[in-house]
Amino acid sequence: MRLTKTLAVLAMGSVAAFAGPAMAQTIGISIPAATHGWAGGLNWHAEQARARLSEAHPDMTFVLVTADSASQQANDLEDLVSIHNIDALVVLPFESEPLTDPVRQVKESGVFVTVVDRGLSQDGIEDVYVAGNNTALGEVSGEYFLTRLGEGDNIVVLRGIPTTIDDERFNAFMDTIEGSGINVLDDEYANWNRDDEFEVMQDFLSRFPDIDGVWAQDDDIALGVIEAIRQAHRVDEMFVVGGAGMKEIVQMVMGGSELVPVDVLYPPAMIATAMDVTVAHYTSNGPVTGRYILGAPLITPENAENYYFPDSPF
Amino acid sequence: MRLTKTLAVLAMGSVAAFAGPAMAQTIGISIPAATHGWAGGLNWHAEQARARLSEAHPDMTFVLVTADSASQQANDLEDLVSIHNIDALVVLPFESEPLTDPVRQVKESGVFVTVVDRGLSQDGIEDVYVAGNNTALGEVSGEYFLTRLGEGDNIVVLRGIPTTIDDERFNAFMDTIEGSGINVLDDEYANWNRDDEFEVMQDFLSRFPDIDGVWAQDDDIALGVIEAIRQAHRVDEMFVVGGAGMKEIVQMVMGGSELVPVDVLYPPAMIATAMDVTVAHYTSNGPVTGRYILGAPLITPENAENYYFPDSPF
Repeated sequence: MRLTKTLAVLAMGSVAAFAGPAMAQTIGISIPAATHGWAGGLNWHAEQARARLSEAHPDMTFVLVTADSASQQANDLEDLVSIHNIDALVVLPFESEPLTDPVRQVKESGVFVTVVDRGLSQDGIEDVYVAGNNTALGEVSGEYFLTRLGEGDNIVVLRGIPTTIDDERFNAFMDTIEGSGINVLDDEYANWNRDDEFEVMQDFLSRFPDIDGVWAQDDDIALGVIEAIRQAHRVDEMFVVGGAGMKEIVQMVMGGSELVPVDVLYPPAMIATAMDVTVAHYTSNGPVTGRYILGAPLITPENAENYYFPDSPF
Repeated sequence: MRLTKTLAVLAMGSVAAFAGPAMAQTIGISIPAATHGWAGGLNWHAEQARARLSEAHPDMTFVLVTADSASQQANDLEDLVSIHNIDALVVLPFESEPLTDPVRQVKESGVFVTVVDRGLSQDGIEDVYVAGNNTALGEVSGEYFLTRLGEGDNIVVLRGIPTTIDDERFNAFMDTIEGSGINVLDDEYANWNRDDEFEVMQDFLSRFPDIDGVWAQDDDIALGVIEAIRQAHRVDEMFVVGGAGMKEIVQMVMGGSELVPVDVLYPPAMIATAMDVTVAHYTSNGPVTGRYILGAPLITPENAENYYFPDSPF
């Protein structure tokens, strides 16, 4: 009774319109330029999403810009605000540190900001953060090794570059296989560089006569590893697990390869997810502000088709 | 100039079809029934999202079912699979424990599963988890108190029901105001029940002659608190911070109330976000699998309009 009365009084105010039927918003998308590799896939998926979203929302404008350096990206951001007058920004920072201030300035000008994958050096600037999950990538990879190997089996691990990303992947993988009896013969940084990967794997192959599995934790690294294994004629001896969802690797998985039986997703298509939620900020009654951490599902012959984009460069 | 060129190059690629053009998928949505309160808002936003998504995707089918009990929801899930033959399920479990097995069975039948807000008792069943952020709600609330109060100021805190949700909110709030000199006179469980809230606040008012602020951490609780403060004629003495985004509270914020100067979002509209990402699984090139934890933004007179849904019951 008491409460009903309160509510009646409170409900008397004016009937305001809510957030937003889309009204000609301009969305800027700023990403590193690339024609190949993970960033090449990023560019391809951003363009796909732009085409799709432009068709679905003809009243909205999408301005996609690509940068060859952190300083060029900072200039791009200025132009997006001053020339294109953007309402929202989707940005995958070239590097965290030099882009933190430029993105903050965009935010302070009143733009809605979605940051993708590479976080800024300071928390709380962006409205939405969309990223892959390096810990999950390590765990899912480790769980696959547990299904294939056990006590006394030998593996080698190729790491990337000493970074938080690499540590998260590696520590999660090692924690997952701990206690299984799987023997990690060695791990070494291969610098996410194909020549280095090839040489590190050659070194492993020459030092270890018995290798059952290789955790390469990245599909680019996996390619160098596969080449070294082929040249050593030891293809039938071991399997290789990469990570990302590169189309050449997904294709091998899809074809039932014994050398590359699975892959673990860390998708460049996350740029499309980030563009989707940014558009939803203007078109949906659902809130979008927050942290969207994508999973790292295991790509198997059964589901590989869902992750295969034959026209993407990656 | 540079931007124009970059855009031209990017636009050259083929317009390939990707993963999934929508092909008559059926999406089931299962939520607790309610005509008022947070769950009433949930029902309203689910219906809004269903209307919007049906129009945007006329080839998809949306089946929205509401349950009065956990066992009815379990039956609903069976029907969604066996009668409606759903491809995807969006479910806000009535309760975690009794719905865990039913949702697992839906998942095992091959359905894509998005769980909202109330997690299942076991990890790893769902494909997507969409939820509010109780820790952020506590932090954002605490940060607001820091802007208003300091050394020697007195507050009281009304808690909900002893649960993880309540602990996360309370601990984050207390951690945030720690060291500020703000004096928490008392905190007490009010059981997310309006009569209890009113009585707890009456007790606080009779025991403490000097109260500067009340953290009610929930808008329903805030209503009971406000009524008690009004009846005690102490409206000018203190401010109240709730949590959720109830329209009566948002309206007070929008109107510049000194008694209710802000609110913190924990939106029932998250069901719409969950429906959006589930549809995107079939219509976007961006991946959606993962954890989407929504933020708890501070609702102020400046932005309150964005969070005000006058036609919603909540």
